[in-house]
Amino acid sequence: MSNLIYVPIGLALLGLVFMMVKMAWVKKQGAGNEKMQEISRNIKAGALAFLNAEYRLLAIFVVIASIALFGISTMVETTSWMIVPAFVVGAIFSAVAGNIGMRIATEANARTTEAARTSLPKALQVSFSGGTVMGLGVAGLAVLGLSLFFLIFIQMFMGQAGSFYSNMTMVLEALAGFSLGAESIALFARVGGGIYTKAADVGADLVGKVEAGIPEDDPRNPATIADNVGDNVGDVAGMGADLFGSYVATVLASMVLGNYIIKDMADAGVVNDAFGGMGPILLPIMIAGVGIVSSIIGTFLIKIKDNDAKEAQVQRALNFGNITSILLTAVAGWFLIDWMLPETIVGMEFFGEGTKDIPSRHVFYATLVGLGVGYLISYFTEYYTALGKKPVMDIVTNSSTGAATNIIAGLATGMISTFSSVILFAVAIWGSYELAGFYGVAIAASSMMATTAMQLAIDAFGPIADNAGGVAEMSELPDEVRERTDILDSVGNTTAAVGKGFAIASAALTALALFAAYVTFTGIDGINIFKADVLAALFIGGMIPVVFSALAMKSVGKAAMDMVMEVRRQFKEIPGIMEGTGTPDYGRCVEISTKAALREMMLPGAMTIVTPIIIGFVMGPEALGSYMAGVAVSGVLWAIFQNNAGGAWDNAKKSFEAGVMINGEMTYKGSEAHKAAVTGDTVGDPFKDTSGPSMNILIKLTCLVGLVIAPILGEISGTGAHADHGQEIMMMCNHPGEACTEKCHAMKQEGEKKTCSPDCKKACCKKKETASINSETLNETSLSLNELKQ
Amino acid sequence: MSNLIYVPIGLALLGLVFMMVKMAWVKKQGAGNEKMQEISRNIKAGALAFLNAEYRLLAIFVVIASIALFGISTMVETTSWMIVPAFVVGAIFSAVAGNIGMRIATEANARTTEAARTSLPKALQVSFSGGTVMGLGVAGLAVLGLSLFFLIFIQMFMGQAGSFYSNMTMVLEALAGFSLGAESIALFARVGGGIYTKAADVGADLVGKVEAGIPEDDPRNPATIADNVGDNVGDVAGMGADLFGSYVATVLASMVLGNYIIKDMADAGVVNDAFGGMGPILLPIMIAGVGIVSSIIGTFLIKIKDNDAKEAQVQRALNFGNITSILLTAVAGWFLIDWMLPETIVGMEFFGEGTKDIPSRHVFYATLVGLGVGYLISYFTEYYTALGKKPVMDIVTNSSTGAATNIIAGLATGMISTFSSVILFAVAIWGSYELAGFYGVAIAASSMMATTAMQLAIDAFGPIADNAGGVAEMSELPDEVRERTDILDSVGNTTAAVGKGFAIASAALTALALFAAYVTFTGIDGINIFKADVLAALFIGGMIPVVFSALAMKSVGKAAMDMVMEVRRQFKEIPGIMEGTGTPDYGRCVEISTKAALREMMLPGAMTIVTPIIIGFVMGPEALGSYMAGVAVSGVLWAIFQNNAGGAWDNAKKSFEAGVMINGEMTYKGSEAHKAAVTGDTVGDPFKDTSGPSMNILIKLTCLVGLVIAPILGEISGTGAHADHGQEIMMMCNHPGEACTEKCHAMKQEGEKKTCSPDCKKACCKKKETASINSETLNETSLSLNELKQ
Repeated sequence: MSNLIYVPIGLALLGLVFMMVKMAWVKKQGAGNEKMQEISRNIKAGALAFLNAEYRLLAIFVVIASIALFGISTMVETTSWMIVPAFVVGAIFSAVAGNIGMRIATEANARTTEAARTSLPKALQVSFSGGTVMGLGVAGLAVLGLSLFFLIFIQMFMGQAGSFYSNMTMVLEALAGFSLGAESIALFARVGGGIYTKAADVGADLVGKVEAGIPEDDPRNPATIADNVGDNVGDVAGMGADLFGSYVATVLASMVLGNYIIKDMADAGVVNDAFGGMGPILLPIMIAGVGIVSSIIGTFLIKIKDNDAKEAQVQRALNFGNITSILLTAVAGWFLIDWMLPETIVGMEFFGEGTKDIPSRHVFYATLVGLGVGYLISYFTEYYTALGKKPVMDIVTNSSTGAATNIIAGLATGMISTFSSVILFAVAIWGSYELAGFYGVAIAASSMMATTAMQLAIDAFGPIADNAGGVAEMSELPDEVRERTDILDSVGNTTAAVGKGFAIASAALTALALFAAYVTFTGIDGINIFKADVLAALFIGGMIPVVFSALAMKSVGKAAMDMVMEVRRQFKEIPGIMEGTGTPDYGRCVEISTKAALREMMLPGAMTIVTPIIIGFVMGPEALGSYMAGVAVSGVLWAIFQNNAGGAWDNAKKSFEAGVMINGEMTYKGSEAHKAAVTGDTVGDPFKDTSGPSMNILIKLTCLVGLVIAPILGEISGTGAHADHGQEIMMMCNHPGEACTEKCHAMKQEGEKKTCSPDCKKACCKKKETASINSETLNETSLSLNELKQ
Repeated sequence: MSNLIYVPIGLALLGLVFMMVKMAWVKKQGAGNEKMQEISRNIKAGALAFLNAEYRLLAIFVVIASIALFGISTMVETTSWMIVPAFVVGAIFSAVAGNIGMRIATEANARTTEAARTSLPKALQVSFSGGTVMGLGVAGLAVLGLSLFFLIFIQMFMGQAGSFYSNMTMVLEALAGFSLGAESIALFARVGGGIYTKAADVGADLVGKVEAGIPEDDPRNPATIADNVGDNVGDVAGMGADLFGSYVATVLASMVLGNYIIKDMADAGVVNDAFGGMGPILLPIMIAGVGIVSSIIGTFLIKIKDNDAKEAQVQRALNFGNITSILLTAVAGWFLIDWMLPETIVGMEFFGEGTKDIPSRHVFYATLVGLGVGYLISYFTEYYTALGKKPVMDIVTNSSTGAATNIIAGLATGMISTFSSVILFAVAIWGSYELAGFYGVAIAASSMMATTAMQLAIDAFGPIADNAGGVAEMSELPDEVRERTDILDSVGNTTAAVGKGFAIASAALTALALFAAYVTFTGIDGINIFKADVLAALFIGGMIPVVFSALAMKSVGKAAMDMVMEVRRQFKEIPGIMEGTGTPDYGRCVEISTKAALREMMLPGAMTIVTPIIIGFVMGPEALGSYMAGVAVSGVLWAIFQNNAGGAWDNAKKSFEAGVMINGEMTYKGSEAHKAAVTGDTVGDPFKDTSGPSMNILIKLTCLVGLVIAPILGEISGTGAHADHGQEIMMMCNHPGEACTEKCHAMKQEGEKKTCSPDCKKACCKKKETASINSETLNETSLSLNELKQ
């Protein structure tokens, strides 16, 4: 065994310590006047109330799921009961990660406003520090949790009887519980948070802006606190849990595939790994640990000096820090791979193509593929959603003929934006696979996710700046303060869109890695869609993201209606509310959003978790694999479509704020075209903030549920990885309709007597083939078929 | 050889004769006053002008494609040059089918108006007779073309050396050319017609209704003739070509799979077919022929008596005729199957499960599955799109809070409607496969399509009634005439939505059958998505329908803008146009729509045809199969989403015409909610009339292109069905990494010396397996393989 595992533990702790230093620094900053502090406290209280209510509900889910997992662990020999504590801790860590982010964000908002009263550079520093706390919290907890459980599990299982591979499989199956816990919480946090934020936003706007004619974030609007709470529970806590889940799932999938490499090398008889078989398994977690350090270094570079800086300068500062962390990770990756992997990985299995010997530098190239995808997806996303680019300008032009043409143009933009991204993913999948098999795909995803701390810091500073603007408005500070926070907010909009592109890219690659791990765990020999049931499952899988999105959108509609009714009621019933003499009941609006979000997140959440289980047990492991592929393909498409359409509509609307040229005429806010653009933006809101960003969790969670039930499916259908590792018995199954031997019958009872059941036959013939090839290899026969046929 | 093939030829001719009788009857009806006749002539001239321009363009395409096909036929031994005339005739027949429909529709419109002056039953009779002419024209030409070419090809190829199976494969590969020709024309006709009709519609509405404030179909609007022409070229000619293509593709796929059954029986040594191996191959075309007769009988039952009948009675009459034809087809199917198939189909191959003996009644059950899918899909479609049902009422309610909520509700309705349809398809695929393998799936599709003549008659009467209403409006007839045609038009809207559901259901099943035929033709052993390149192709395939839809929608937008400019120009420049003293230049608007439609249909059309060719040659046959599956899954989802969202928006808007209750208040046309609903309908227009209905052609054409290049791909990669039928050489390829024999190396040069290339290895190992199984089989069976092959 190797002591290497202590390195990522150390790096994770380093990240968490740095996080605490940053947190202390943020808290030391001035929090502004009493009014600002009160608003900030209200937002914090609302956000905490939501999270607490959510966690109480999820605790019930965790208990039920734990019982189910314990059941699985008693049924399947290779799944340890330790999957249960791993699952529970995964769920708790995910909640804590979201909680840390939410707490610091609600601390940093008023402090950013206070800083913006005097200095833009300071405001950036405060808001970005808030983001950094969140980023490091998520990355640190993820690496810490994974490494600690890995350490515990290898001490529990690696000493047992059995091969390295099968013991390590037990370790990783238990570790999958950690990932499952993290991803389940992420799903509910994302969906619940997404519904919350859009219900409050749409509700506040429809009555406040449209009916009562008061500006956004006006303190007279009862829903305004709920709206600002929404930014925190949706964009901060939801996103934190989301990326925590992605990060863990990616590393886990890479570890599973690393274990498979060790098995391949063992099969080929050349285990030349310097770390007792641990090299390929620990590599992804080491890359993650190094990524934390790279991210910390990058954060020091993100600063501006000019108090009159514009968006471009802020964006440039962020890019500089980001690219530095990515480059540092790439360089560190080179040395890590050189150190941890054997120079040549011998006998790596390429499905359907036999085995290949892969030089370790190919694995490094795969990390470059991953980093390249991360860069390019940002580039594409920016093209389709950024102000002033052709797609957004097209939507602006189409707004001049009304809402309908605006909507058509936005939908078409979202749809056509799938082209470049899907081609990119396809090339990346193929390329990294050609380089180093599915391990290459997984390592590409891992390297992309390595700088999660930095990505999240850049992402999370946006909502903090957005909230800071809200605080400035509500506490009636001078316009210049709002102008400064608006610059940060505007940059934050771009980074949010880019972050969503990044999340879906990582989900696509991670899903593939999980998919590969799933196939390995079940022991099936591929997913052949030239079988009707497998193809039927592909159709069902493709449909799930569409129906999920529909449910999420309908939920936003229903929740927003509840909010509209309440705000209308308060405007009518609370005396003096419009004159500013009566105080609106902010708490009631927070409560309504909370209740609606929790109620509405149940159905899509349950659908995500239950459907793969049903498919797996009713249709079998191969159909479930196909279902996963269907969810992944359709989910990626709908994610890109919804995120980019929503982002483009948002910026088309924003274009009118500074004025925009349509058919030779300058057009401004308040014009008919602007109204059409507002309609588009409202349609885009649930797209880009509720259903779109949920897609990547849907994809990953589907694959994780599959992975956790994989051993049980493998055992039922007799294809299990472990079933193959017993003795190999020659079977009489040459001809269909012929009797099988007893062992086959024992595997599965079929109604038809003396006839091979399909599964039995497959298992038989698989063994038969192996057996006959071996026998003929020995005899070195070279009979021609022509001879046989005569 | 069997003379059975003369039966469908006879039935097709019967259908065509009956069509001519009906046509003569329609032409004998009174065509109304001079004004009505002039309008009708103008519409006809515009429609013919478009079709002629379209055909001139498509002729160039046909020439280029013919050269390419001729090239393929010289490269692949098993593809005859006869594929070229088959392709050309397929294209011509498709064009003729669309042309017949368009001509009769433009004759029947004014005659329906004339009939509606006195009698609703007569108006239904005239318009439905017009639809019948089109339905019988399409079905008759399809069956005639397929049967005639089949007759010619069996006489050309069946006498040659080689097995029944390989000769029949040549026949069917050449026949695939006919289907390819039909489907290519269908694509351009659908896309071009869809762009035309929506450009004219949106253009006429935006300037006429919105800007100038004149009613729909007002003769002062220069785009009004173009709008009515659009109904004919889009909904009539486009749909006719579409269903012609579907019908041919479905029957062809079933024939290919029927041939495979013969091979399975030969492999099992029990060819107990009473028609010299022709039974399973001819069954689908016989079902199609019988379906024509059933449809003719059904048309006699469609009549109403009451001059004051409402929509419900008209709908009931249509349903009665339709269900009668379906039941007649089912009954005839029972006898046909009993007669034409052996009581037990021995040794049918079920991929991955070995072979099974299938009783012929299982094939009959598969026809019931197909008929059931046809019925249920209509039911689901109606639920999501019909007036007064919950989904439409939800959209109506959401219109009260503005266009944005209307759009969100419509999108969500379209999205959620995928659930029931996809589950239905999945169950049907699985069920019909379990019953009788992929042949069962194909037969299910064939039986669904058997009553195409009736479906199309019901579908096509709608646009005729719509046009009749336009003629009434333009020639300023009394309101009661328009009221009568409106009843027919309203029923036509429902049948149009149902027809689209039917088309996508048939496309889904046909695509699967084509997919199965493709796998057979290439000789690959399945499509395993647990290979990175195959999975990458699945992603690309999934993306194509989305990008195709985006292109179609953008095209409508561009073309509509052209129209808007022209109508504005005429209003400004032609003196007295608004007072009715100046005559608008209708021809110019027709020309603009024509040009725009032809220009815009090129890119999506080319993408559909070229992409599978690139994927096939760059990534190989297995990846192309996966690409097809991706297009099918994603295409089905986007078709249902777009068709149903569009249909629901349309009827949500219509709900306001009679007045509708929202939150306890009656709301009418002209209200704010109605305006929001109009916005939704405008968004839905390109969804339901351009991109949505193109999806099913996209799916089928993709599979057909794959099918036609399948043999060449099989030959390149050495997996071809025919490669197996030459001499079979025992290969030394037991162990990966071992040297291959020369033939393997000759197949594909690989950089790595002494290592099997992936394709080589696959081919080797496949032969290896066959060899070892055959050797043992031969010891037990008394039948010699050589005997069977004759």
